[in-house]
Amino acid sequence: MIQLEALYKISYGLYIVTSGDRNQGNGFVSNTVFQVTSQPQRFAVCCNKDNYSASFIQQFKAFAISILAQDASAELIGKFGYKSGREMNKMTDVKVIFKETNVPIVLDGSLAFFECKLVDVFDVGTHWIFIGELVSAEIVDDTGQPLTYAYYREVKKGFSPKNAPTYIDQSKIETKTENAMSKKFKCPICGYIYDEAEEKVKFSDLPDDWVCPVCGSEKSEFIEIS
Amino acid sequence: MIQLEALYKISYGLYIVTSGDRNQGNGFVSNTVFQVTSQPQRFAVCCNKDNYSASFIQQFKAFAISILAQDASAELIGKFGYKSGREMNKMTDVKVIFKETNVPIVLDGSLAFFECKLVDVFDVGTHWIFIGELVSAEIVDDTGQPLTYAYYREVKKGFSPKNAPTYIDQSKIETKTENAMSKKFKCPICGYIYDEAEEKVKFSDLPDDWVCPVCGSEKSEFIEIS
Repeated sequence: MIQLEALYKISYGLYIVTSGDRNQGNGFVSNTVFQVTSQPQRFAVCCNKDNYSASFIQQFKAFAISILAQDASAELIGKFGYKSGREMNKMTDVKVIFKETNVPIVLDGSLAFFECKLVDVFDVGTHWIFIGELVSAEIVDDTGQPLTYAYYREVKKGFSPKNAPTYIDQSKIETKTENAMSKKFKCPICGYIYDEAEEKVKFSDLPDDWVCPVCGSEKSEFIEIS
Repeated sequence: MIQLEALYKISYGLYIVTSGDRNQGNGFVSNTVFQVTSQPQRFAVCCNKDNYSASFIQQFKAFAISILAQDASAELIGKFGYKSGREMNKMTDVKVIFKETNVPIVLDGSLAFFECKLVDVFDVGTHWIFIGELVSAEIVDDTGQPLTYAYYREVKKGFSPKNAPTYIDQSKIETKTENAMSKKFKCPICGYIYDEAEEKVKFSDLPDDWVCPVCGSEKSEFIEIS
């Protein structure tokens, strides 16, 4: 028996993983970052092979990990988590710095960062595991709390996109009985669903400047679903 | 610059990873568990090469991951996290079940478990990364909260042992000025330090049945340190 809900009990943080140089950069939101050895200090990051960032990490042989704060903006998470660098320059309007390896390191919405030189790559099927050796680490904001994946799901109502290691097919999880009178509206960018029954506010009653809490898309872009 | 405190901002859960069969079993506490692909569902677990459990996983070609609850006992964490299966049978007095692969799955102090068949092993220096494919997953307790590494450190005052991927040499982190009149006492089993200045209670004033909050060792075993 595989009870998919059990997967939700795994604790993760949320991070922006970046690569590139001073001329070009890209990054993605990851929840699969962990330290693998302490002597030397090495980190593992899992990345879908189709991610534009995967090619950056392989080309530039380095990456940076920014630890997202609980109050990181929906726009920042939406841009790095649900949009592709093939269609936009994600580094525009984002505060970055450059250290030892010259990869762009995101400071916006971040508590701390790690900069790593790529030392190994493992093939795990649909994803790569990149192994990086720490070359710099700094705290950006010592007062905030790290954004965890549980907080992101439960408070921010976010979820993993389809290409994430931790994607769960919601249709395979038993759902609660819903109010037949209520409607649902779906964000076409990130897939976030606004459920009137759950939110207790009609979608039409939301202000016009309301935006998707996950990716920052405008209210007018939402599509009613049955 | 490598600011080691930045490593504390990484979010992890805490898990007991086990292997073996119905006749013999072993396990260890890990905070480095993550899902690497969703099609198929595969998990990565990082394990020190010297861990007795590493040889079990390689021999039995399977492992189980139990997600620890916030209220998991100090004795359970102490046994699996700070003692070696070379010196004791860790499975004694622990509630386990057996599913598809016949590895022992720990239910005590657990919210959910995953059982995996070993599909790959990667060498990352001092540690292995074991990749397992999910064969069963079940929720054991749907009411408790997962124990995170942050909670373990901040509330339970625990820390990583020397062979953990996330071990941090405390002596390299700047310490606060301490009260010269206060004393410190160290647990000889897990290394936990009782600091009178921090706890505001003299060690000698603690009741005789007080035990190490990390591993459950008795008060009389503690050693005064300068």
